[in-house]
Amino acid sequence: MQKGLFITFEGTDGSGKTTQLNLIKEYLENKGFDCVVTREPGALDFGKKIRDILLNSDENISDNAEMFLFLADRAQHIDKFIKPALNDGKIVLCDRHVDSTLAYQGYGRNRDVEMLRKLNNIAVSGVIPDLTLLFDVSEENAAKRLDRVKDRMELSGKEFYNAVRRGYLLLQKEEPQRIKLIDANNSINIVYNISKELIDELISRKSGE
Amino acid sequence: MQKGLFITFEGTDGSGKTTQLNLIKEYLENKGFDCVVTREPGALDFGKKIRDILLNSDENISDNAEMFLFLADRAQHIDKFIKPALNDGKIVLCDRHVDSTLAYQGYGRNRDVEMLRKLNNIAVSGVIPDLTLLFDVSEENAAKRLDRVKDRMELSGKEFYNAVRRGYLLLQKEEPQRIKLIDANNSINIVYNISKELIDELISRKSGE
Repeated sequence: MQKGLFITFEGTDGSGKTTQLNLIKEYLENKGFDCVVTREPGALDFGKKIRDILLNSDENISDNAEMFLFLADRAQHIDKFIKPALNDGKIVLCDRHVDSTLAYQGYGRNRDVEMLRKLNNIAVSGVIPDLTLLFDVSEENAAKRLDRVKDRMELSGKEFYNAVRRGYLLLQKEEPQRIKLIDANNSINIVYNISKELIDELISRKSGE
Repeated sequence: MQKGLFITFEGTDGSGKTTQLNLIKEYLENKGFDCVVTREPGALDFGKKIRDILLNSDENISDNAEMFLFLADRAQHIDKFIKPALNDGKIVLCDRHVDSTLAYQGYGRNRDVEMLRKLNNIAVSGVIPDLTLLFDVSEENAAKRLDRVKDRMELSGKEFYNAVRRGYLLLQKEEPQRIKLIDANNSINIVYNISKELIDELISRKSGE
């Protein structure tokens, strides 16, 4: 039986999700919770080997092969890292997970969202986030925040950014219970307070179950 | 448009399929056809890296992660090797393909056959064998043929062998047009003559299309 909590942090680059994840980790640890922070593509040795294939291959890797490599990484990450941590009663804070795949590959890159969803359902074998915080920010604000993001956005274009953002919002509408939309155009502090409230609410709900 | 032919060779270990594949290659080349021989897991550099992850990982790899790695290898093999060869008008002779996965992982290891089929349909992106030769041999005859096979069979057991064999026979019943059943209890020569006939029939049918 799962005893811990699985919380994912989602949003476009520049949405501030990683900043919030680190603040929430500190907040929870100060409250005495045992947290682990992780991210995808997986931080495991397995994930590093997968990244190595993706980055250093002499061959040109096909779209499908790349997709299955990411799914292998996700399956391994779930089975060998996230599940054991949850079984140990830990709070797992994960920077990007399935919703990123659906938003970026599905809505952003126009791959078949339903197919991606089915494949990911197999890969996660029943491990669904208890809560997903979706940090939503306008393209203008995201671009302002970080030069790095600006560069990447110029690379892939505003159209792509907005397609991903719309994708995330669609996903949130489909699962409003799990995915909580946070207006990340606000200041770090306001966003942090909203995040804390949502997490407190989750913890009190779960401890009452 | 696909101009070549895709022929897969399937059966349990000890069925003689690899021997037949090599005979057929010689036969077709003597007739002037341009053949390539390949096998799965893929012979490509990509496939070698996948095998390296599977064999030399410090971590214990989960069943799902392993399955997705094999699918990645299959997708790459199809997209970057088999498809281009078919587009060049070659005859691709492949030692094991999707039916092996269904027979071994599905029927042999009791994984969900329909799920495996769906995943493989995505991986092969429409490239279905024009002909599959299924070499069927009794467990007794397979065991007699090769010590190597005997060892492996003792390892995984007669029950496993028979489950895989039954799985292959079920697959053949579902797709009798594509999968041709060959009684491989017969001598190499008899089996070869039957294989040749089936391949000649395919070639004359395809050249008439």
